Amino acid sequence: MQYNKRTHTCGELRSSHIGQTVTLTGWVDTRRDLGGVIFIDLRDRYGKTQVVFNPQHHEAIHTLAKELRTEFVISVSGTVERRPGGTDNAKLSTGEIDVLGHTLTILNKAETTPFPIEDKLDTNEDLRLKYRYLDLRRAPMQQNLLLRHKMYQITRRYFDEHSFLEVETPVLMKSTPEGARDFLVPSRINPGKFYALPQSPQTYKQILMVAGYDRYFQIVKCFRDEDLRADRQLEFTQIDVEMSFVDEIDIQTIVEGLMVRFMKEIKGIDVTAPFPRLTYKDAMEGYGSDKPDLRFGLKFSDLSGLVKDSGFKVFTENVKKGGVVAGFAVPGGAAYTRNQMDNLVDFTKSLGVGGLAYIKLTEKGIESAIEKFLGNELCMQICTTTGAKVGDLVLLVSDTWQKTYSTLGVLRMEMAKRLNLIDENAWNLHWVVDFPMFEWNDEEKRYVAMHHPFTAPKPEDAHLLDGDASKARARAYDLVMNGNEIAGGSIRIYDSALQSKVFGLLGIGPEEAKMKFGFMLDAFKYGAPPHGGIAFGLDRMAMLFAGAKSIRDVIAFPKTSSGISLMDENPSEVDKKQLDELHIKLK
Amino acid sequence: MQYNKRTHTCGELRSSHIGQTVTLTGWVDTRRDLGGVIFIDLRDRYGKTQVVFNPQHHEAIHTLAKELRTEFVISVSGTVERRPGGTDNAKLSTGEIDVLGHTLTILNKAETTPFPIEDKLDTNEDLRLKYRYLDLRRAPMQQNLLLRHKMYQITRRYFDEHSFLEVETPVLMKSTPEGARDFLVPSRINPGKFYALPQSPQTYKQILMVAGYDRYFQIVKCFRDEDLRADRQLEFTQIDVEMSFVDEIDIQTIVEGLMVRFMKEIKGIDVTAPFPRLTYKDAMEGYGSDKPDLRFGLKFSDLSGLVKDSGFKVFTENVKKGGVVAGFAVPGGAAYTRNQMDNLVDFTKSLGVGGLAYIKLTEKGIESAIEKFLGNELCMQICTTTGAKVGDLVLLVSDTWQKTYSTLGVLRMEMAKRLNLIDENAWNLHWVVDFPMFEWNDEEKRYVAMHHPFTAPKPEDAHLLDGDASKARARAYDLVMNGNEIAGGSIRIYDSALQSKVFGLLGIGPEEAKMKFGFMLDAFKYGAPPHGGIAFGLDRMAMLFAGAKSIRDVIAFPKTSSGISLMDENPSEVDKKQLDELHIKLK
Repeated sequence: MQYNKRTHTCGELRSSHIGQTVTLTGWVDTRRDLGGVIFIDLRDRYGKTQVVFNPQHHEAIHTLAKELRTEFVISVSGTVERRPGGTDNAKLSTGEIDVLGHTLTILNKAETTPFPIEDKLDTNEDLRLKYRYLDLRRAPMQQNLLLRHKMYQITRRYFDEHSFLEVETPVLMKSTPEGARDFLVPSRINPGKFYALPQSPQTYKQILMVAGYDRYFQIVKCFRDEDLRADRQLEFTQIDVEMSFVDEIDIQTIVEGLMVRFMKEIKGIDVTAPFPRLTYKDAMEGYGSDKPDLRFGLKFSDLSGLVKDSGFKVFTENVKKGGVVAGFAVPGGAAYTRNQMDNLVDFTKSLGVGGLAYIKLTEKGIESAIEKFLGNELCMQICTTTGAKVGDLVLLVSDTWQKTYSTLGVLRMEMAKRLNLIDENAWNLHWVVDFPMFEWNDEEKRYVAMHHPFTAPKPEDAHLLDGDASKARARAYDLVMNGNEIAGGSIRIYDSALQSKVFGLLGIGPEEAKMKFGFMLDAFKYGAPPHGGIAFGLDRMAMLFAGAKSIRDVIAFPKTSSGISLMDENPSEVDKKQLDELHIKLK
Repeated sequence: MQYNKRTHTCGELRSSHIGQTVTLTGWVDTRRDLGGVIFIDLRDRYGKTQVVFNPQHHEAIHTLAKELRTEFVISVSGTVERRPGGTDNAKLSTGEIDVLGHTLTILNKAETTPFPIEDKLDTNEDLRLKYRYLDLRRAPMQQNLLLRHKMYQITRRYFDEHSFLEVETPVLMKSTPEGARDFLVPSRINPGKFYALPQSPQTYKQILMVAGYDRYFQIVKCFRDEDLRADRQLEFTQIDVEMSFVDEIDIQTIVEGLMVRFMKEIKGIDVTAPFPRLTYKDAMEGYGSDKPDLRFGLKFSDLSGLVKDSGFKVFTENVKKGGVVAGFAVPGGAAYTRNQMDNLVDFTKSLGVGGLAYIKLTEKGIESAIEKFLGNELCMQICTTTGAKVGDLVLLVSDTWQKTYSTLGVLRMEMAKRLNLIDENAWNLHWVVDFPMFEWNDEEKRYVAMHHPFTAPKPEDAHLLDGDASKARARAYDLVMNGNEIAGGSIRIYDSALQSKVFGLLGIGPEEAKMKFGFMLDAFKYGAPPHGGIAFGLDRMAMLFAGAKSIRDVIAFPKTSSGISLMDENPSEVDKKQLDELHIKLK
């Protein structure tokens, strides 16, 4: 179809263009008929421009313009005019002008869309996903994808400036499930054999360090075949980084530089590096989380010492067994009603601990069911230690170290929400460091790597690998933003013997290690440098920057929590011929 | 392990650093022991620096340095010195200085490598692929990956500057095999259903145009499960581009801008846009290829008219049947011996045509076995038409249009190689345009899309879709560099009815079209803009820029022609438990 090509975009015309003849192309966003004159807002990715069809000026075109409906695609030529006095639209960058149309081509018609192309949309997400091409026309979605685009460019420019090499690693790799399930891809040429999609390019980036590439980065798709909790995707995007001849601080410094740039270029906020560092132990004992949200306080106090000889058996026996009694003060919480407190106790029990003890500090003094066991003085000491003031409430949990703090961690977030303590405009960035090497997996009855099997132990804890390995700390670090882990990394093992030992502790015997990771153990024998790295979850970071509620809102074509793409209907059944060629059949 | 961290890289020190104390880290590239003094070249990604261990200066360190072997990883501190007179190494950027080592840490030892880490390597490729981490240490491989890195950055910077949005499209998509085979990925959550890996993000990028994104690009992995001819990979990298409200020239202009920048920034060569455009017909009839190498001549002449009434039945009957007689002059070819000519005839026959006729133009006149049929005058006319001069040889083929020209095309390349006509330093870029919409697939007994099913017909040929569709030309274009297709694209169909018609011509019935591409046909009903795009094969382009012999040399971790990664041994067998979870079993 012949049509006038655009001379400007729909976001470009200003009063300086008045009098010029221009052509715009785009979508009819709105159409109004006022006293025989037709006004449309024409929309493209760059903005909106008002176009006027006036029968007194161009009758034939006005007649054609009557056919226009929203989402029609048109090319329109006309003259740029100043809008009549008082009709300027300050919300539009083009709001001072309109275009008096004299040539109009309808490039494509549009049926009535299943939902309106509007910023605020009250429709269910499945419909948006089915008609993703319409959903993606909405300004908030376009802004989200533009934000991602900016993040890609900032990331690559930053790493390029810092001498990192971008290297593509394979998508078809070896299946070595450890932790999460692999996606498998049957090989047609090699019957009975399978490729796996990468859960991360971990082994390849370490191999690149062994190969002397010194500084590597990649923005890369990774895959995990896990049951999708809210806000996970089967495929996700990672900013992947690895460096040689470095320690933790080198890597954290590089990462901080990127975050400073993100905050500046995306949010317009100056943040200062270095970011605070919190040990895993301090994070857990202070905030009950390995990714604490530090936009607010509600910090815990360990009260075990205070209560260990008290008259309250629940506390004393727990402390005697090695457990912990800890708690925190809730500002203004003394005003909570009996009903509200019962509700909070139930909520706490639902987290899997025995109960929730509490002390109210009112103008009349202590109000607490456990005062009779602890005595008034000890209750007052607990208030002092937790920093409770008159009018506050102290919440206390007594259980194992792990359960006490993780329960308090959930309670802390819950109270912050109820008390509206979280400043949504605040940006808090900090590191959590010194994670344990291993955590016990009750299901598999074995240790699993808290970070991954390639993480080096802290030098001063290396001897623990031959003793109480559960106490060994790793050279691992997570970057936390507003209570979300947005990056995690570690200094790696680069010694074949140490790597084999760690595999052993993880229950990966010599045979299995050789089969799965033999090439890495071999590579380490030919001159492997000290190295380490980190990986960012780009989707989640984009979501936080966008202020979006779901990562699906910052992914062009996401899948549902059942792993389904509603637009193009995949996964789908395939021809038997395809399966035959792949030497597989359905069970 | 504690060690001194580097203050400089191994490519950084100059005479201006003399007297400074520095630390370098890297690999021992070479080690020489001269009169008790140990010299090593220390290597990292950035260069090499000579380090000297002198027992007169630092005896203990010298003793430790005796342990050093090639590929050991070390940290060495010392003083930068001017090299003794006459020992400068002009080949090294650091060749004016050396470092007198006074502190040495061996960070990792290395076993003897299975092949030396040298620029020129005489070892079989399988061994290089098995020990890829060693192969990748070699300077030519590092340069190739650095070149790729530059290509990525240039590409993204260029498209970002031109308002293109980078959007990630899904890797797990729908299986719609059309042309090549899909890789399939069984879904665990959706039993009996499969994802496919993208052969290209074609449908997604068109959907992005329907969604109003106007200008899209992505550097993206694509996958084809085809038997690997030399120099193909199961996964390959594409620069993917799509634009709205454009015609062929708009897209070609954007592409030319990128190529100009590549040539300048990578090869240091100024090339001029626009590049020449050749129709498919002219390319075939002039050079016997849809991706002709125009670094040399040897252009064909159609001789059908000249010979159609001659006395040579082979020619006259072929022309009568609609066939073609064509040929080209080979400079200096009259000197070919009888044996050489027999060899050439056999070569030609091996291409599947009946034979090769030829005319030598010597100082004595025509020498040709077909002179007796054609007569001397006609032979001379053939020489004149093909531009043959005394001493030249004219090669003639008589067959169908397709066979004549494709055979001549192969002969042309063969003669160019034999005559050494190809200037390896020349860079020739041109477009081939006006491809046919369809080509006949003898195996499947149906038309297949020459480009792909979404390609629009030329407006003046659209009526042919209702008649002799085989004659319809497409709005498709290929970019050719030195006889290699490096990019291919088209203006797309954006009308639901036309798209359905083309599906029909390709034997994709309404039912199948709806199942496979229903979402696109639907999308076109809600306001689709005119759009088109292109995709570059990045691997091949990198190979050409690098002057490499194989695309495997510009891919960090390639697979063999059997689709195997020799380093980490994939594809591999997997646990039955994994297959059970995926609801499949082996046949």
